[in-house]
Amino acid sequence: MKGNLIIGQSGGPTSVINSSLAGVIKACWTEGIRRIYGMHYGIEGLLQEDIVDIEDYITSAHDLSLLKRTPSSFLGTCRYKLPPIEGNEKTYEKIFDILDKKNIEFFLYNGGNDSMDTIKQLSDYAAKYNKKQKFMGIPKTIDNDLPMTDHCPGYGSSAKYIATSMKEIIRDNESYGVSKPTVCIVEIMGRHAGWLTAAAAMSRDIDCSGPDLIYLPEVPFDIKDFVKRIKELAKTKKSIVVAVSEGLKTKDDKFVCELGSSNDHVDAFGHIQLAGTAAYLASVIKDETGLKSRYIEFSSLQRCAAHVSSRVDSDEAYNVGFLAAEAAFQGKTGMMITIQVESREPYVETYDMFDIHEVANVERKVPLNWIINDGTYVSDEYLKYARPFIIGSIQPYTAAGLPIHITMNKKKK
Amino acid sequence: MKGNLIIGQSGGPTSVINSSLAGVIKACWTEGIRRIYGMHYGIEGLLQEDIVDIEDYITSAHDLSLLKRTPSSFLGTCRYKLPPIEGNEKTYEKIFDILDKKNIEFFLYNGGNDSMDTIKQLSDYAAKYNKKQKFMGIPKTIDNDLPMTDHCPGYGSSAKYIATSMKEIIRDNESYGVSKPTVCIVEIMGRHAGWLTAAAAMSRDIDCSGPDLIYLPEVPFDIKDFVKRIKELAKTKKSIVVAVSEGLKTKDDKFVCELGSSNDHVDAFGHIQLAGTAAYLASVIKDETGLKSRYIEFSSLQRCAAHVSSRVDSDEAYNVGFLAAEAAFQGKTGMMITIQVESREPYVETYDMFDIHEVANVERKVPLNWIINDGTYVSDEYLKYARPFIIGSIQPYTAAGLPIHITMNKKKK
Repeated sequence: MKGNLIIGQSGGPTSVINSSLAGVIKACWTEGIRRIYGMHYGIEGLLQEDIVDIEDYITSAHDLSLLKRTPSSFLGTCRYKLPPIEGNEKTYEKIFDILDKKNIEFFLYNGGNDSMDTIKQLSDYAAKYNKKQKFMGIPKTIDNDLPMTDHCPGYGSSAKYIATSMKEIIRDNESYGVSKPTVCIVEIMGRHAGWLTAAAAMSRDIDCSGPDLIYLPEVPFDIKDFVKRIKELAKTKKSIVVAVSEGLKTKDDKFVCELGSSNDHVDAFGHIQLAGTAAYLASVIKDETGLKSRYIEFSSLQRCAAHVSSRVDSDEAYNVGFLAAEAAFQGKTGMMITIQVESREPYVETYDMFDIHEVANVERKVPLNWIINDGTYVSDEYLKYARPFIIGSIQPYTAAGLPIHITMNKKKK
Repeated sequence: MKGNLIIGQSGGPTSVINSSLAGVIKACWTEGIRRIYGMHYGIEGLLQEDIVDIEDYITSAHDLSLLKRTPSSFLGTCRYKLPPIEGNEKTYEKIFDILDKKNIEFFLYNGGNDSMDTIKQLSDYAAKYNKKQKFMGIPKTIDNDLPMTDHCPGYGSSAKYIATSMKEIIRDNESYGVSKPTVCIVEIMGRHAGWLTAAAAMSRDIDCSGPDLIYLPEVPFDIKDFVKRIKELAKTKKSIVVAVSEGLKTKDDKFVCELGSSNDHVDAFGHIQLAGTAAYLASVIKDETGLKSRYIEFSSLQRCAAHVSSRVDSDEAYNVGFLAAEAAFQGKTGMMITIQVESREPYVETYDMFDIHEVANVERKVPLNWIINDGTYVSDEYLKYARPFIIGSIQPYTAAGLPIHITMNKKKK
């Protein structure tokens, strides 16, 4: 008889991270795994032996459906990187002792680059010391920056939120037409990779002009050129909308968001004020052009707005969870499930898996040849790549007009 | 035979402002009005004779359905207050000349306090100079601060967006549990009235603890007390979420958002940085408590996120538009349609109308006895009042995973 399974969720939550958890649970039920454990707050919680029995909360198909519709890590998450094995054997021994004590044979971890490092370290240790446990990675990141996989679960729903909100923001910004032009700068997540910011381009359609400019962190940002382009646009347009990545850097490698704080501003109480990239650029535009300007930050809504999730994304998140568990049951270890796309129109995806050493700690950025117009837009190749990810919706269950979520507030038994 | 009709949209757009427009168009079709004109960018556009023929764009029941699902003023909007009649007769003569030239007999204006002032001025002028035109006001404001009406179309959908997003943000903020507490401060619109900020309270339910503190602009804000309360909460909670109105003021009548800029901070380029209320309070919390803190601004999304509109709100917006047109056809003038609530459980609303002089320029705030816990929360009376407004949803029509909107980009004929 097989041993038990433990699953952890790690890094920034997404709208569909719990779909992967639902897939894992379904695979366990199919396989007849006796106990399904969850790390409460990821590997950081596991190190404190904070482990929950998932079937204290989730026991039915309806629970799984509700779980798929619940954003943000059901089990709680962490940002914690395991130290190198050498010199830290005690930490690893502790983890394996905990696993052995609970008769855990299958260890799944759902996250991005850093989280895949956890799988790498643990599977390396297991190989070195001949441990029985199998370790499988389940990809998850709104940043879409994991390698080897065509795209990452979580990205599609964030992209759908961004493109949807961008359409609505552009409509809003276009509604004033008599007075002087209004420049609206929208800040989108992604420190190093511009995948999320690129998603703003999907708002362009027959009923929407899309953002006028899109700036990704893959290309150095030139403030003077930016101001020049805005001035040029303002000659013919009343509404100018710009999408910028939070991670924009100037040619001399300074974050744009840091420029606004360069004078060590402190207020009357001695507090330092920090402005975001969009807030800073909005103030630059106001001062340099005299135009009206404002900024919008999507903030954590872009990773948790499950009320506008993508069906394709949710299904894929479920599938990579299910397949990771199945692979572990079949004896696979030290690998991450990946998504491959056979055809984009019609959209057909398949699944594969890759050695975790090829995945961990590697960041995949937007190809430079997809960034066009001197670094101010993304190409049709990007649109062709990304459009399938936002298709379909997974509507929340609602009560009294609001989404219902499943939580760990109350045990079932 | 009756004359023609003109409708204008004014002030900040909402998710359902076009439902009112749809109601007006439907009433015109029912009545057999020959021409339905639209002011392009409100009264400001009208003064420039920028008038559109609405049936160049909207001709079918399907168009009306799509219009209801399109956020932000279809016709364009403005913030423009007519000058006093005395001494500015030329301006008024110009307006009436334009109306006469187009044989316009019915003048509808859809907006908030300032927009109702436009109806008041024009109907006063018409009475004084014995003009034939009828002037009716259609209420609209996410701020919910118009008097005489139980609530305002536009508020329900914004409230639904706020409560939905708040549930998702709280889940997101709760996902980190091992490290130190995280304080998330969410800034919500409403300079003078706290109706929108109060809506954050609706997120509290069996599956969500709701915000820990809610601060409305009706009550002076005490920063020291705020910091004390956060420190107290941090003793037992890992996730602390606070809803604040953008219009919070201290006891000495200073906007909190201005405190952050009190040292005239300029960056390396000489640009002045302005922080929002939440951004400022997040920096205060970080410095004063050492806790992790972050801020979220709902910004214009709270007025244009039509993908999460309320069905009740959309229907009511449609009804006040329809009824305003009908009232004008019946010879009423100088009035605004209002919503009265006969019963809250089950929810039954009726409609009435009031003299525009009782409405224009009056701001209705949240009753002080609905603000509890020393100004840090709202009462169950508020919840009982507001919960019906967010019931039901009006799903956008979609293509390729994104909402479709109807726009003035292309004429039908």
